[in-house]
Amino acid sequence: MDPKLEALFKPRSIAVVGASRKPGKIGFEILRNIIEYGFKGKVYPVNPKAKEILGLKAYPSLSAVPEDIDMVVVSVPAQYVLDVIDEAGKKNAKVAVVITSGFKEIGRADLEEELVRRARKWGIRVLGPNIFGMIYTPARLNASFGPTDVISGSVAFITQSGALGIALMGMTIVERIGVSAIISIGNKADIDDADLLEYLADDPNTKVILIYLEGVTDGKKFLKVAQKVTLKKPIIVVKAGRTEAGAKAVASHTGSLAGNVVIYSTLFRQTGILQARNVEEAFDWARAFSYLPEYKGGKLVLVTNGGGAGVLSTDTLSENGVKLEPPPKSLVDALKPKLPGFASLGNPIDVTGMISNEGFVDAIMEALNNPEVGAVMGIYCQTAVTDPMVIASMLVRKVKAMGGLPKPLVLTLIGGEECYWAVTKLNSAKIPTYPMPERAASTIAAVINYTRMREEVKRRLSELNEVSD
Amino acid sequence: MDPKLEALFKPRSIAVVGASRKPGKIGFEILRNIIEYGFKGKVYPVNPKAKEILGLKAYPSLSAVPEDIDMVVVSVPAQYVLDVIDEAGKKNAKVAVVITSGFKEIGRADLEEELVRRARKWGIRVLGPNIFGMIYTPARLNASFGPTDVISGSVAFITQSGALGIALMGMTIVERIGVSAIISIGNKADIDDADLLEYLADDPNTKVILIYLEGVTDGKKFLKVAQKVTLKKPIIVVKAGRTEAGAKAVASHTGSLAGNVVIYSTLFRQTGILQARNVEEAFDWARAFSYLPEYKGGKLVLVTNGGGAGVLSTDTLSENGVKLEPPPKSLVDALKPKLPGFASLGNPIDVTGMISNEGFVDAIMEALNNPEVGAVMGIYCQTAVTDPMVIASMLVRKVKAMGGLPKPLVLTLIGGEECYWAVTKLNSAKIPTYPMPERAASTIAAVINYTRMREEVKRRLSELNEVSD
Repeated sequence: MDPKLEALFKPRSIAVVGASRKPGKIGFEILRNIIEYGFKGKVYPVNPKAKEILGLKAYPSLSAVPEDIDMVVVSVPAQYVLDVIDEAGKKNAKVAVVITSGFKEIGRADLEEELVRRARKWGIRVLGPNIFGMIYTPARLNASFGPTDVISGSVAFITQSGALGIALMGMTIVERIGVSAIISIGNKADIDDADLLEYLADDPNTKVILIYLEGVTDGKKFLKVAQKVTLKKPIIVVKAGRTEAGAKAVASHTGSLAGNVVIYSTLFRQTGILQARNVEEAFDWARAFSYLPEYKGGKLVLVTNGGGAGVLSTDTLSENGVKLEPPPKSLVDALKPKLPGFASLGNPIDVTGMISNEGFVDAIMEALNNPEVGAVMGIYCQTAVTDPMVIASMLVRKVKAMGGLPKPLVLTLIGGEECYWAVTKLNSAKIPTYPMPERAASTIAAVINYTRMREEVKRRLSELNEVSD
Repeated sequence: MDPKLEALFKPRSIAVVGASRKPGKIGFEILRNIIEYGFKGKVYPVNPKAKEILGLKAYPSLSAVPEDIDMVVVSVPAQYVLDVIDEAGKKNAKVAVVITSGFKEIGRADLEEELVRRARKWGIRVLGPNIFGMIYTPARLNASFGPTDVISGSVAFITQSGALGIALMGMTIVERIGVSAIISIGNKADIDDADLLEYLADDPNTKVILIYLEGVTDGKKFLKVAQKVTLKKPIIVVKAGRTEAGAKAVASHTGSLAGNVVIYSTLFRQTGILQARNVEEAFDWARAFSYLPEYKGGKLVLVTNGGGAGVLSTDTLSENGVKLEPPPKSLVDALKPKLPGFASLGNPIDVTGMISNEGFVDAIMEALNNPEVGAVMGIYCQTAVTDPMVIASMLVRKVKAMGGLPKPLVLTLIGGEECYWAVTKLNSAKIPTYPMPERAASTIAAVINYTRMREEVKRRLSELNEVSD
């Protein structure tokens, strides 16, 4: 890994070239976000016409800044970007975050190549161009013109699309999904997905990496790196341009080659990358990986108070390659005396709609504590005899008393307003919970599939090593 | 259609046998819901120990009620149900809504057969047994023990699962999905899906029918009826037990035969039934059908301010069998002068992230008003230069000024909290809007596919007629 990438995530100082005094301007918004989000290093606004911006002394040019600078954020029109790179080089900058658009995406590949050439000459790594910036919450760094108040957590999100990326940043805030990093990768003139994956693989603040991907520029490099990274942490990809029509749309969007659908899916599987069907699913999965301990084998047990929701979950699991086995005998023996006679003790375990708050929570805890059980999915349909908020509180308390979840647990709470509040409560306590059974089922399937795929990749790699011995 | 079914939806009088004075008891909750939801007909609580329940005079038995009764809601233990049916018969009841469980679902098929035999003798139609009741909002009738405050609208929902059905009733309230009817169909001892479909096909208050289906008892009847009904209005099915594992779970839930997955899917397609992949999708679709005018052919045009979201939507459309053609030349000509030079005027039409509130709304309206356009999908990614609430208000105003939507329009607004409010605002104005691009795309695909399938069914039926001529 290039040590210079360290400066992308943890710069000691940042210059914003093209900093503006006008709210609404990109050069203003980025500077404001850097300041408001609480970046602790030095910040130098660069603007030839301003003396001070947002309370900080402004400099007429990069050269006028009295010290060396780690990161230069570039938000000036395209024709001035090359000069800024030269000035940044003289200040020993390590990375340039080039917000500016007007390069390859509008047919100016020549300008983009020159940008990279110039940056290489000075040993500067370039993020972008044509991006909304980047965020790294452990460093309290928000060098983007997206929303300010991103929630800190352990999901790293790399996005090839700008507008969608900013919009999804906003979505993570409403949905209370905590992120470690959000990186707008844009035209990938220099820094590409593989570079970022390499860095994030060893980042202790990142538990899972989510990529919105239209196409990769260097497929071999991407796959080689991804294969190593998935051994350490899950990578979730939403691949845009999965269909012929979508691939055409990609071409007119970022000019990337979306490539062959089947080839991508196969390669994802072989490298242990989890491919989500859509954005909602990708974030559902990312949330779970960021909250949960690793799945280490053992049975998946479903506990439901509603037969129908149990069936739908079983279908979804099966469609995602996860088969249900009969529950451990010890679990059946433990639960049987506590449940109504007509409860169904297969898998799903149907504790029936007559179950109380305590009864439902108790069944989940029994399953979690059973040594043969490796993962649990709790399915709750709102009933007149239970209260989703009480169930949520009890579960949160019991899990806390255990010192956190010992193995993966996902929940679905289906029902009215109380369920929505309970879903939020459980997610705040890092128990991944969803308002729909299929979303919870697809998520626990992803958690299990990740471990399985990783073991498969490991096995294949060790076979390859034996062959080469 | 059996005219007695009229009494299921529009009874003039209802007796609740097993009415209780204790809140929390099913016999209390149902009576309370009937009263609180504002049923205008006569209501007779039947309870041998009470003089009055919830302000209504109570009767010791059905026979003691001084008049004939249209609908008898039965909530007494299974062993007393047969006697209640006999009493109901003497009161010329037309339908019995048998809440009580303890029949076929626990192996007492004998008791269930006797129940039907007894009801037939009296000419009573039976809903259930083993159900949570039914709701028909145009008659202000909530004869269920689910939530009280169901929102009135034009989605009819038939559910084979009780617990899931009640939970989803609650969900419709939070999601502001208006329903015409919710019917818990349970063991389908007498009234089955086909009977209800026949009634709802001609119900002017119902625009779309959503069924949670585990299995059908009389497949031929179901398909024959469904084929006729889909000519009039869309039927959306969530089929539980789609996989081998799911089918097993169905068997242990309601004892239905989930049947062969492929056969079901093929038959659904042939009869013009829309099969949703999951509950969320089914309700997404139902919402759109309840709001929108019919799709009558013509091009589908996508208008987006974010390239990536446009690509994802294109993929989803393609995966749902809807191909995008180039936009009408007249639309391109109309939009070109108003858009930035780098806007992409294919399909999706990418109006770019630089577009203003007015510009985005204007592009949507241009598309809606173009005579070659048959349906529109608007894709909005939250940006710093736009405000989703302003866009929502403008759209609502413009659509109102047109006297409502002239053709199908769905929207997705992706972003932070403001987007969530704007989604709610648009849905309240009957413009179906979703927080994720793929959900909106799958919905507009369903709207288009319904019309196409229906034309296909019509064509096939007329061919059959020609052959038989």
